[in-house]
Amino acid sequence: MQSSELEGRRVGVAVVGLGGAVATTAVAGMELIRQGVAGPDGLPLAGFDGLVPYENLVFGGWDLCGDDLASAAATHGILSPEQVRRAKPALVELRPWSAAVDPGFCRNAAGSNALAVEGLRARSDAIREDLRRFQEENDLDGTVLVNLASTERLADPTLPVLSTAEAFERGLDEDAPGISPAMLYAYAAIREGAPYVNFTPSVAAEIPALVELAGREGVPVCGKDGKTGQTMIKTVLAPALRARALRVEGWFSTNLLGNGDGFVLSDPDSLASKIDTKGSVLDEMLGYEVPDHVVAINYYRPRGDDKEAWDNVDLVGFLGHRMQLKVNFLCGDSVLAAPLVVELARLADLALMRGESGVQEQLGLFFKAPMTEKAGSRPRHAFHAQEEALQTWLANGSNGNGAAR
Amino acid sequence: MQSSELEGRRVGVAVVGLGGAVATTAVAGMELIRQGVAGPDGLPLAGFDGLVPYENLVFGGWDLCGDDLASAAATHGILSPEQVRRAKPALVELRPWSAAVDPGFCRNAAGSNALAVEGLRARSDAIREDLRRFQEENDLDGTVLVNLASTERLADPTLPVLSTAEAFERGLDEDAPGISPAMLYAYAAIREGAPYVNFTPSVAAEIPALVELAGREGVPVCGKDGKTGQTMIKTVLAPALRARALRVEGWFSTNLLGNGDGFVLSDPDSLASKIDTKGSVLDEMLGYEVPDHVVAINYYRPRGDDKEAWDNVDLVGFLGHRMQLKVNFLCGDSVLAAPLVVELARLADLALMRGESGVQEQLGLFFKAPMTEKAGSRPRHAFHAQEEALQTWLANGSNGNGAAR
Amino acid sequence: MQSSELEGRRVGVAVVGLGGAVATTAVAGMELIRQGVAGPDGLPLAGFDGLVPYENLVFGGWDLCGDDLASAAATHGILSPEQVRRAKPALVELRPWSAAVDPGFCRNAAGSNALAVEGLRARSDAIREDLRRFQEENDLDGTVLVNLASTERLADPTLPVLSTAEAFERGLDEDAPGISPAMLYAYAAIREGAPYVNFTPSVAAEIPALVELAGREGVPVCGKDGKTGQTMIKTVLAPALRARALRVEGWFSTNLLGNGDGFVLSDPDSLASKIDTKGSVLDEMLGYEVPDHVVAINYYRPRGDDKEAWDNVDLVGFLGHRMQLKVNFLCGDSVLAAPLVVELARLADLALMRGESGVQEQLGLFFKAPMTEKAGSRPRHAFHAQEEALQTWLANGSNGNGAAR
Amino acid sequence: MQSSELEGRRVGVAVVGLGGAVATTAVAGMELIRQGVAGPDGLPLAGFDGLVPYENLVFGGWDLCGDDLASAAATHGILSPEQVRRAKPALVELRPWSAAVDPGFCRNAAGSNALAVEGLRARSDAIREDLRRFQEENDLDGTVLVNLASTERLADPTLPVLSTAEAFERGLDEDAPGISPAMLYAYAAIREGAPYVNFTPSVAAEIPALVELAGREGVPVCGKDGKTGQTMIKTVLAPALRARALRVEGWFSTNLLGNGDGFVLSDPDSLASKIDTKGSVLDEMLGYEVPDHVVAINYYRPRGDDKEAWDNVDLVGFLGHRMQLKVNFLCGDSVLAAPLVVELARLADLALMRGESGVQEQLGLFFKAPMTEKAGSRPRHAFHAQEEALQTWLANGSNGNGAAR
Repeated sequence: MQSSELEGRRVGVAVVGLGGAVATTAVAGMELIRQGVAGPDGLPLAGFDGLVPYENLVFGGWDLCGDDLASAAATHGILSPEQVRRAKPALVELRPWSAAVDPGFCRNAAGSNALAVEGLRARSDAIREDLRRFQEENDLDGTVLVNLASTERLADPTLPVLSTAEAFERGLDEDAPGISPAMLYAYAAIREGAPYVNFTPSVAAEIPALVELAGREGVPVCGKDGKTGQTMIKTVLAPALRARALRVEGWFSTNLLGNGDGFVLSDPDSLASKIDTKGSVLDEMLGYEVPDHVVAINYYRPRGDDKEAWDNVDLVGFLGHRMQLKVNFLCGDSVLAAPLVVELARLADLALMRGESGVQEQLGLFFKAPMTEKAGSRPRHAFHAQEEALQTWLANGSNGNGAAR
Repeated sequence: MQSSELEGRRVGVAVVGLGGAVATTAVAGMELIRQGVAGPDGLPLAGFDGLVPYENLVFGGWDLCGDDLASAAATHGILSPEQVRRAKPALVELRPWSAAVDPGFCRNAAGSNALAVEGLRARSDAIREDLRRFQEENDLDGTVLVNLASTERLADPTLPVLSTAEAFERGLDEDAPGISPAMLYAYAAIREGAPYVNFTPSVAAEIPALVELAGREGVPVCGKDGKTGQTMIKTVLAPALRARALRVEGWFSTNLLGNGDGFVLSDPDSLASKIDTKGSVLDEMLGYEVPDHVVAINYYRPRGDDKEAWDNVDLVGFLGHRMQLKVNFLCGDSVLAAPLVVELARLADLALMRGESGVQEQLGLFFKAPMTEKAGSRPRHAFHAQEEALQTWLANGSNGNGAAR
Repeated sequence: MQSSELEGRRVGVAVVGLGGAVATTAVAGMELIRQGVAGPDGLPLAGFDGLVPYENLVFGGWDLCGDDLASAAATHGILSPEQVRRAKPALVELRPWSAAVDPGFCRNAAGSNALAVEGLRARSDAIREDLRRFQEENDLDGTVLVNLASTERLADPTLPVLSTAEAFERGLDEDAPGISPAMLYAYAAIREGAPYVNFTPSVAAEIPALVELAGREGVPVCGKDGKTGQTMIKTVLAPALRARALRVEGWFSTNLLGNGDGFVLSDPDSLASKIDTKGSVLDEMLGYEVPDHVVAINYYRPRGDDKEAWDNVDLVGFLGHRMQLKVNFLCGDSVLAAPLVVELARLADLALMRGESGVQEQLGLFFKAPMTEKAGSRPRHAFHAQEEALQTWLANGSNGNGAAR
Repeated sequence: MQSSELEGRRVGVAVVGLGGAVATTAVAGMELIRQGVAGPDGLPLAGFDGLVPYENLVFGGWDLCGDDLASAAATHGILSPEQVRRAKPALVELRPWSAAVDPGFCRNAAGSNALAVEGLRARSDAIREDLRRFQEENDLDGTVLVNLASTERLADPTLPVLSTAEAFERGLDEDAPGISPAMLYAYAAIREGAPYVNFTPSVAAEIPALVELAGREGVPVCGKDGKTGQTMIKTVLAPALRARALRVEGWFSTNLLGNGDGFVLSDPDSLASKIDTKGSVLDEMLGYEVPDHVVAINYYRPRGDDKEAWDNVDLVGFLGHRMQLKVNFLCGDSVLAAPLVVELARLADLALMRGESGVQEQLGLFFKAPMTEKAGSRPRHAFHAQEEALQTWLANGSNGNGAAR
């Protein structure tokens, strides 16, 4: 891929949950970069020039709240007044499209800008139509669909309707109850040839039906559940504890979340999805089952969009000596997530250009529950191993190897 | 190297500071493993079978305090009463040899069991004689010398007398003031063909004179300053912060130490050596100079042999958002250090068997200030990169590649 | 009260839950004080000489586990091996009496040493008989009954059967389902003239029926829920935050408990009682309702009998500036509770000697949910105000004022 | 004192260090209260109506930097942009008077707006002249002088020149080297009948000469060293630890300061004054000498005007069991200090109105090193006891008792 080629490339980012804090922050951030008033902090691949430039990303997407993004930004309160002022002319132009929603899958999400169409097939057609219109109106060279919607309840990926592409297509026609909105968006993206990124804990592209479809259609998919705060730190520390043979007897993790995400997670059904993607991480990295691994997520309003993690790790060292490691991470939810979303969109676009299809394991660095190419195989969680996998993929591609694949 | 060969191999570990907390814990721990009552916790290479077995290590060494190791263990209070009871018959047999000391290099270290011999040459001869006697009396296949002595004041490695092997030899004859006890032990080890491990922050084998000598004599040397608590965590976290482009605006580290090490470090001269090995670590890993990096080390008696680190990291993320990461590590000084000392002795022995000589960079995983083969080149500090280097070396060697070097 | 009189006084402490960690620690501690090998640390009134001496306390009590207290101490693992060795001859003599239990009130508590008698009246008679026998066999001048049993489910104190002494008596005869084991023990104590101390969160002496009875029978009662760790710190900090006009916007409290108490609290029903006694504390002290007050209690085995509290307080100061105060308390559950139990037994005995009867508000310093004399009146929670109330009561009594009441 | 009388009263607050962060925040805060856009958060006596109203305070003062307070506020970065915008018209009018400075007493303080006059007598006359002009020009009913200047080096209060009012007067005439700028301002205030508040750790009104003078002239004085963050928490926790008989074996306190105060304290001489006022606090409250009490103060720029305290307390409880209490306070330096300065000015004015003179012990609640009426007597440090003393004084005064004194 020549840099000159990339310079002219325009890529659409169609976001489910466009009015949310993460998406709004990403959109505003790209605008501020375009204006030259924001720097590379927080953007892991700011120094790598084999990706479509930040300036060439075009945002659009769906949201249950139909307010323009300037209003959304004001509500979220993440940007400084000065940043809001500068980004406003761009944000005010962006008004989310009507979103597909199903209260059976996400109780606490609500809003007036719901897709009026009934029936799964009609809805997926509407979403595909949105994608096509987005691409045409903006004269895009490609579009990536990113799921940033509220967490749905834990779906059952072993349902027959989710097991093959054919069964899934039939399920759309017959309004099968096992198909969630998240799956609908993933399906639409794949059918339109748009790479799909699942940044939420919801079950979506990893169902056998969609993995099969993505492979057949030659579309890259990746996910799931963005790895930003506590889990990131966990995947950094645990491999080192293993390397020092410090046995983890217990790991207690508590999270304070004050934004909409936290509120949605106060619904036990949504929380189940979240906990599920956090759970097995530790055992895989350590090579044994941690006897006491507790993950608590709390909705605590004073934190606002910031979040706070407090971890306590109980270690057993030489001669049975007990030690404790405690980590307190005071961080910003959207501020950590937004740049990863942007990088994932650029990476998914690169994967498409390189002709990759199906599950993109090399993007596991950005996810709490990385999808694996082989169904049932366990993902790698160790942060540095994931980073090396990504760097290797990036380096090989720029050596021209990627094109040959 | 055949496992059968290793099974019969007996390796001596001659320790400077044998009566100290770290050495006593290591000796007792190996005895408890021999008895089958201690497990692999804390021993990073317990699962790797290409090293001399723990049971075949024979301990001896020097200390300013001449008490047997059972008395020393009672003083340090690290082992449980039950562990002391079991290890006692072995510990009571071990009585340290007279140690070389120089108040000009270490003020707060004191004791009655000082080497009576005057003059640098006579002292180095006495140390070499100790090593030969130790080897013969115990019928050893090899001996490794490990420095666990109290931290000396920061020496000047650019003195002419330390710049070549020849100048150093002359300096010994002429009682040159720039030669410290730590250097004397390192010199003696190299001349006797014994691999040398510097687990302290003192300047020793890294002076040009000894690097040259180690290369010429075909002796592996490594160091320095064991990486156990806070710095270990630092070298685990910092690379991940870089990978996420979270800019470190400040890193404040405070340490509470209650044991003899802490007391020695309450002498500003010794502290200077310690701080020096902690200082540049961060900038190398992050790729830029951290504006505010503060490392405070405090002697605080209630901590006893346990130590405590509290770190605060100030981060700048996307759009200039500020975040804080705080780490509180309640750990055991000797309990973390002792198993690393044991592994280093086994690894240095492996290096000797493989015919390696000079600086062993692949052992950098265990040190705060890893020695580099090329003078002036900057060491790698990132924990996982160091671990990979060690694993590669271990794996290649068992493939027989090591022997060919 | 003359000191000479106190010197000869022998007081029984009959404990519900005698084999538990708190009671065992208290019994062993008094034995070690008797032997002169334990000091006054942790005993708030060690320096006050108007109470029955520690040496004159005689312990007995009920437990679902019938093992002697030496076995119990070994299980709990709180005392050092040396302390166990010294206390053993005394502990081995103590074997708990059969305990009254009702699975409807406490699911997770179990054991083989249950009272064989059926029916509430028969059970209360059996308990009273135990108290009389205890008093006679040990030639006691008085007996205090202390509830240290596992937390029962939240009972409803407004049931008619609990509203008057008469209704309660009738309820005993008719096996009314609203009467819990905790109430049974409290009733038996009051009827026997033994002061009653409720150190658990269970509903007991505060029901109108028993408050009435205690007043009529002239028996002091106090409770409930010992204030040891996190709540103690809370009642120390909150009044100061109020005094500095630092507005508490949120207070997040998490607790890690690894002992039997923690296990019982993993039953949501028992947890409800516990949370109930923690809940309203904050608002009373601050004078306004804290918008986000979260108290999480987690069963986390690595902590063992130690417990750990992590608190985060969000404050709003001058000109709306936000601040955070975080407290991490690594403490021992039984080690904090046992000396308070001992002091409460001595204080309850003093109250009896002084002729006090009914609710003893001046002992609120030791409780999370202090009982009040007037039904429905709100208790004082501020630590220093409670301490002053106790000191005043102690001082007045020694001035002879107490006797006149 | 009638409320109607207070309503009309206008009180000047003449601040040494007017351009500093604390003073600027105080001035802006009072302006925002005047405008009705700031509330009572952080102002401990906002609900007490026996003091001159906030709206009636008039600010003026000295600073080495002559910039107006709007510029100062912009530099300090404590107020929000919106707050700056609103307060600006008032702040821009305030320009500090030339300040007396002596590099021998404070090395790191510098600025161009120094008093041009030479000689101690001439300087004190200039300060007195400033006070008189301030009072006249603003038609004030009284003026309070508050010291908020940078910490001076630890002065020796036992020098003969500081021992009597007479010796001090002679020292002014003879330019005695022991007289510091802080003392000069305190002297000037007392001679002008203006109550004096020392919010800094510098030695000033507590020297015998000025205590004598204040008594003779009937002027209230109080100090020293505002109790805002870590020490406040210490004086809240320690009395409770004592009440629970939890023995403090060690207390380690570390402070991160990023503002000008922190920079001045990076000069060891100024630090000595600060540490001195922090030191003995603990022992007085606990009633014994804490074996290891360490207070570390660090200049750490990322904190800015915020400050952070991390405390670790080692406790010994029942049967020798060890526990740890850790407190992390993320707070704002000026935001905590400014409202206390305002309240002290109002309280000092009340003391003057009530006819009090000399040391005002009842204001000890606001100071790290409270002055005592009797020379050499030890001050009370326990937070709640100090608060009670203040409340009693306030209550008695409004009962009319104050007037009779």
